[in-house]
Amino acid sequence: MSNLITPRTLSGFMELPPQEQLLFDEVKRRLEEVYRSFGFYSIDTPVLEYSEILLAKAGGETEKQIYRFQKGDTDMTMRFDLTVPLAKYVAKNAGTLTFPFKRYQIGKVYRGERAQKGRFREFYQADIDIIGDGSLGIANDAEIPAVICAALSSLGITDFTIRLNNRKVLNGLFALMGMQEQATDVMRTIDKLEKIGREKVTEELGEIGMDAEKAGRLLDLLSLKAQPEEVLSRLGAMQGQSAVLDEGVSELGDVLRYAVAFGVPRENLRIDLTIARGLDYYTGTVYETTLNRHPEIGSICSGGRYDNLAGYYTDRKLPGVGMSIGLTRLFYILNERKYLNTAWSAPADALILPMTDDVSRAVEVGAALRRAGIRTQIYLENRKFKHKIGYADKLGIPYAVFLGEDEIAAGTLTVKDMRTGEQRTLSLEEAAALILSDAQARGAQQCVKL
Amino acid sequence: MSNLITPRTLSGFMELPPQEQLLFDEVKRRLEEVYRSFGFYSIDTPVLEYSEILLAKAGGETEKQIYRFQKGDTDMTMRFDLTVPLAKYVAKNAGTLTFPFKRYQIGKVYRGERAQKGRFREFYQADIDIIGDGSLGIANDAEIPAVICAALSSLGITDFTIRLNNRKVLNGLFALMGMQEQATDVMRTIDKLEKIGREKVTEELGEIGMDAEKAGRLLDLLSLKAQPEEVLSRLGAMQGQSAVLDEGVSELGDVLRYAVAFGVPRENLRIDLTIARGLDYYTGTVYETTLNRHPEIGSICSGGRYDNLAGYYTDRKLPGVGMSIGLTRLFYILNERKYLNTAWSAPADALILPMTDDVSRAVEVGAALRRAGIRTQIYLENRKFKHKIGYADKLGIPYAVFLGEDEIAAGTLTVKDMRTGEQRTLSLEEAAALILSDAQARGAQQCVKL
Repeated sequence: MSNLITPRTLSGFMELPPQEQLLFDEVKRRLEEVYRSFGFYSIDTPVLEYSEILLAKAGGETEKQIYRFQKGDTDMTMRFDLTVPLAKYVAKNAGTLTFPFKRYQIGKVYRGERAQKGRFREFYQADIDIIGDGSLGIANDAEIPAVICAALSSLGITDFTIRLNNRKVLNGLFALMGMQEQATDVMRTIDKLEKIGREKVTEELGEIGMDAEKAGRLLDLLSLKAQPEEVLSRLGAMQGQSAVLDEGVSELGDVLRYAVAFGVPRENLRIDLTIARGLDYYTGTVYETTLNRHPEIGSICSGGRYDNLAGYYTDRKLPGVGMSIGLTRLFYILNERKYLNTAWSAPADALILPMTDDVSRAVEVGAALRRAGIRTQIYLENRKFKHKIGYADKLGIPYAVFLGEDEIAAGTLTVKDMRTGEQRTLSLEEAAALILSDAQARGAQQCVKL
Repeated sequence: MSNLITPRTLSGFMELPPQEQLLFDEVKRRLEEVYRSFGFYSIDTPVLEYSEILLAKAGGETEKQIYRFQKGDTDMTMRFDLTVPLAKYVAKNAGTLTFPFKRYQIGKVYRGERAQKGRFREFYQADIDIIGDGSLGIANDAEIPAVICAALSSLGITDFTIRLNNRKVLNGLFALMGMQEQATDVMRTIDKLEKIGREKVTEELGEIGMDAEKAGRLLDLLSLKAQPEEVLSRLGAMQGQSAVLDEGVSELGDVLRYAVAFGVPRENLRIDLTIARGLDYYTGTVYETTLNRHPEIGSICSGGRYDNLAGYYTDRKLPGVGMSIGLTRLFYILNERKYLNTAWSAPADALILPMTDDVSRAVEVGAALRRAGIRTQIYLENRKFKHKIGYADKLGIPYAVFLGEDEIAAGTLTVKDMRTGEQRTLSLEEAAALILSDAQARGAQQCVKL
């Protein structure tokens, strides 16, 4: 009787087959490159933190979903987002950091939710934030859409819409309607417009105390489908009635104008007055990003402006603006729908197949190809030819390089393109040039094919 | 009275300032590039696993050092190395993986040890392994030193020694001396030679049952300081006395020969018969790697050949060979001793300083520089000039680009080299070419300056 333990992975924890992991890595690498190109620092905070720190703000729902435990005298929790650790980091290092502090972090976070299809308990978030000391210029709010645009474009995604709004515009409008006190409730209800529809929202607004006529006017204005300039001019026509509204409209205008200067194509930008990003965290600009041909996926990257990052840890006022990509979820959706480019799933550009017992020459050729920038494997097992070539085939390695006694004697290589079956006898330099140019062409391809 | 919570990080958890994090990221990125160049797949297993899985093999000491907890009905543990998760992964996916399976994983692992200087509770390991199905050719054992050599060279570390040994050689020698039964104890004692010295080792060998004369002969042979070929020939002279010894000597010879074919310089290779890598995990080749001018650091990357990766989870025989770099520890040592090249610690190659209220042109120039491959920040705060230039200075950004009304009117940029103070008026193209060539020169520099 065997005492084997069945190897298994916790449910809700993504663990990819090797080929798919290569695709994930490439998506992650490209996001990182874009974040770096804008001059964001990376930080790498611990997965574990004092529970007291992580749960400073958390309410009942969060507490239920966390991984928390005691080790010795210490009460620890696994991070459930990257924002609370950022707040701790900035508060802790405020004395030595230079502001504005631009940071990205791509890391795993943990939520002990009920596992279900497409929902993960361990997942990557890919966040950027810009933190000011006391104040932070509005142009920063326009850099975030520029990063979103560059990030998605780097993957090959171009048919998307970044929806902009500003909480001050909403708060101003609610105040004009005498709903200042209920602003949070109104906001939360409006946020559901896309999900539950206009009728149901009108009903819920009624329950909060907004009559049907007012609700109708509000919803007409918020749902306005028009060019950003027209939305701004409609809002501009209300100038002078509410200081908050005026400020919001001015900010929204600045963000739009600067985002275009940052190089975001106009067709990727929309003002959408219905988005509010739930909760009371955001205080100004808010963003959501949707794929035009896949609205059912919902927002794939969202964020906004907040007044005070780290109020639980420091008296210093630290306003910021940022956004987060739910990387694991985004990857899961793209992968499940086969939108990812499998040109990325080969672990090597060339596989050398030695046909002699002594593999020294194969090993030398491998080192030479690697020096030329080619990811190169050598098949080092003493197996039948069928196995050797089958290995290249199964791994999707585009070139097999045969090295038998003839080739060694002649100082040549026999190179087979595994996709076309074409076979050629080449010098080492010719082979390297061929394989490298093919690898570069694949490398330049987009990750995502929507 | 304020209710602020003091922001703090768990002790033993490395959390770097932004500039140092950039250095860490660069070290990590280079290791990854090297692993990929050899055609290793990456895998990304969860940080949390079923305790039953992770602790299949573990003994009392490991159990004390782990982070283990219960959530609902599930008993979970944070991974304490990357080898057990690899074993699980391979056993679980054995039916679909193609062998030999070459994988790397760079990830955090967790040990609840007593925290002390230079010891971490959360730390990165950077592992590679090659797993065979039933068998695995000896040339693979030579690829590991090739990867070690390429990895260290990529960081700029060249003055190192990879020490090779083979457990079969040791087992053969012990058997010849009639110490077959006590082989494990002898091995463990020999392993301490460098630490406790010859006299103490002789004493301990005596306690195990080896007389002083035999111990003397053994230690003379093992401590032989000679060229690898001479060590091999000394061992070769004993041929025919022990099949295990003969096999070990033959393997050691193959590994040495192929490692040189793989491009490892001879001066970086040594046979060191005293290294045994503790424990009973390894069965053939073993490696340690030391910095020649810093022997006190000990081995910075170690590994070896094992017969059976996943015996706890599957009946399938999966032999392998691999090595691990303790990345956090290595970084800590290099960083603490100021061996890391600070040319890597700037978050951007250029900082644009707008001198007008409207920052549109600055934002456009930033987008253009970024398209040229330059990491570019724009200072978007409305602060005094002193603050703007101070920001570039504090962050160590090499070029400041001034954009005032004159420059905007003339379509030029004023570019200041922050290191020399030299200031020039250039076109956008000229500025981009200057900044890019400087960034590339810095990028080509080595990470480590020993």
